[in-house]
Amino acid sequence: MTPAERAQLALLVELAATPAPGNVDRERDHPDLRFEQFLAGAVGAGEGLRAAAGTGRGVGAAFEAAVGGMAAAAGTNTQFGALLLLVPLVRTAATGPLTRSRAAGVVGDTTVADAAAFYRAFDAVDVAVGEPPPDAAELDARRGADAVPAVEERGVTLRDVLALAEGDGVAAEWVEGFPRAFAVADRIAGGEGPLADRAARAFLAELARVPDSLVARRHGEAVAAALVERAADLRDADRERVAAFADELVERGVNPGTTADVVAAGVFVALERGVSV
Amino acid sequence: MTPAERAQLALLVELAATPAPGNVDRERDHPDLRFEQFLAGAVGAGEGLRAAAGTGRGVGAAFEAAVGGMAAAAGTNTQFGALLLLVPLVRTAATGPLTRSRAAGVVGDTTVADAAAFYRAFDAVDVAVGEPPPDAAELDARRGADAVPAVEERGVTLRDVLALAEGDGVAAEWVEGFPRAFAVADRIAGGEGPLADRAARAFLAELARVPDSLVARRHGEAVAAALVERAADLRDADRERVAAFADELVERGVNPGTTADVVAAGVFVALERGVSV
Repeated sequence: MTPAERAQLALLVELAATPAPGNVDRERDHPDLRFEQFLAGAVGAGEGLRAAAGTGRGVGAAFEAAVGGMAAAAGTNTQFGALLLLVPLVRTAATGPLTRSRAAGVVGDTTVADAAAFYRAFDAVDVAVGEPPPDAAELDARRGADAVPAVEERGVTLRDVLALAEGDGVAAEWVEGFPRAFAVADRIAGGEGPLADRAARAFLAELARVPDSLVARRHGEAVAAALVERAADLRDADRERVAAFADELVERGVNPGTTADVVAAGVFVALERGVSV
Repeated sequence: MTPAERAQLALLVELAATPAPGNVDRERDHPDLRFEQFLAGAVGAGEGLRAAAGTGRGVGAAFEAAVGGMAAAAGTNTQFGALLLLVPLVRTAATGPLTRSRAAGVVGDTTVADAAAFYRAFDAVDVAVGEPPPDAAELDARRGADAVPAVEERGVTLRDVLALAEGDGVAAEWVEGFPRAFAVADRIAGGEGPLADRAARAFLAELARVPDSLVARRHGEAVAAALVERAADLRDADRERVAAFADELVERGVNPGTTADVVAAGVFVALERGVSV
């Protein structure tokens, strides 16, 4: 497999991992988001992921292509955050050893053009993002391509843009050199059993460790903090109790999507290290 | 989406369709074949499916690449028969309208080189195939690349080779212009609800209509015929009864894989006609 294929497979394995409390998984759909839409999103992202592995296009343009293909195939936003993590990791793996410092280098090398492409990607999908800092309202990601002139005038790179996204778990991975993705990969590589089961256990462990930023944005910090406690209580629970928690979260519409994004990135790193399905 | 992407998505939707009695589906694994291996197979087949959509490589070479990629990613044979149906259908869709007569034309245009590539594809995987006719023992597909000199000496095309495969449901589709794939597509296009549910109903209907040739080869004609009757009895049954039948077949190790191949091809044709997930 190529790095782009491993990234596509990582999206699919994360999707299949069950129970992944609060997320669409092999056993659960959300009322407005079905398993097949995630399958389609992973297929549609393929061309952008292959662009990420090449060097002919920037990381931002590859991301824009991946999100555009995902949205066209799925008809909605299924894997925006996961692709934002996977694109620089694929670039890293395709150009040399996949290490945290090299991945940080890929992030550090992003340009203003990458930032512009990132903003254009928002035109393809509805993404839940937080408010920008008060002095950066022009750079609100929800403005999509309309923000590009401000991006160019200020000369901000894609890394700069993500450094502004306070409290966003995916952006934090970019800025900090993907600590969680690599930690999840270590956990998966050291685990036993089928890869999807290892990914499900890694998901629960991450949920118990770091408040999910998508949940915090949609439901508030208190709900995100409570989720950490509930997940921590379930760390040694049997599968049935975790499954009941998963059913409850779907019922409540609480969707820890950032944790899923991080796990997908971790599965990718694990696949790159030779873990197989 | 491109034809190659629709083919990849068709593999994944057929996989997710549940209950698909006797096959790995969203709710069931086989003891020696897991859901994730099919996910990996669909990812690994991507490059070959894209080759099928191009015109730089023959249909046989595209199939060989698809099977090689599938086997490398999945570690086993997951979708050999489905790919044998999808490759000429992708070529047809990528070069003009996807009609039965044009698909038959693609099959009719196959060459000796396509046949040679088909035999080489068997070197990548274990595939259950029937005995060749007595006067064509040299062309036994199980010989893999060793059969290529005989293929070239006899000057047989890939269509000729498949015409020798008496009683094989996938080969029959090739020779007869894909009647079942297009009929399944009609059924799916006329159905309601999520695509994977329509595919599951189409699977049961096909199982009730045509004895599965993989089951016949592995378990005998009587078992294949009994399966048709059981499936026919369940046509108007509720989901629980179909699911119980699915559990029973997995338990017995009866795997109607040819029917799954035909349904995957039908899902592809339906996607090409604008049906969405």
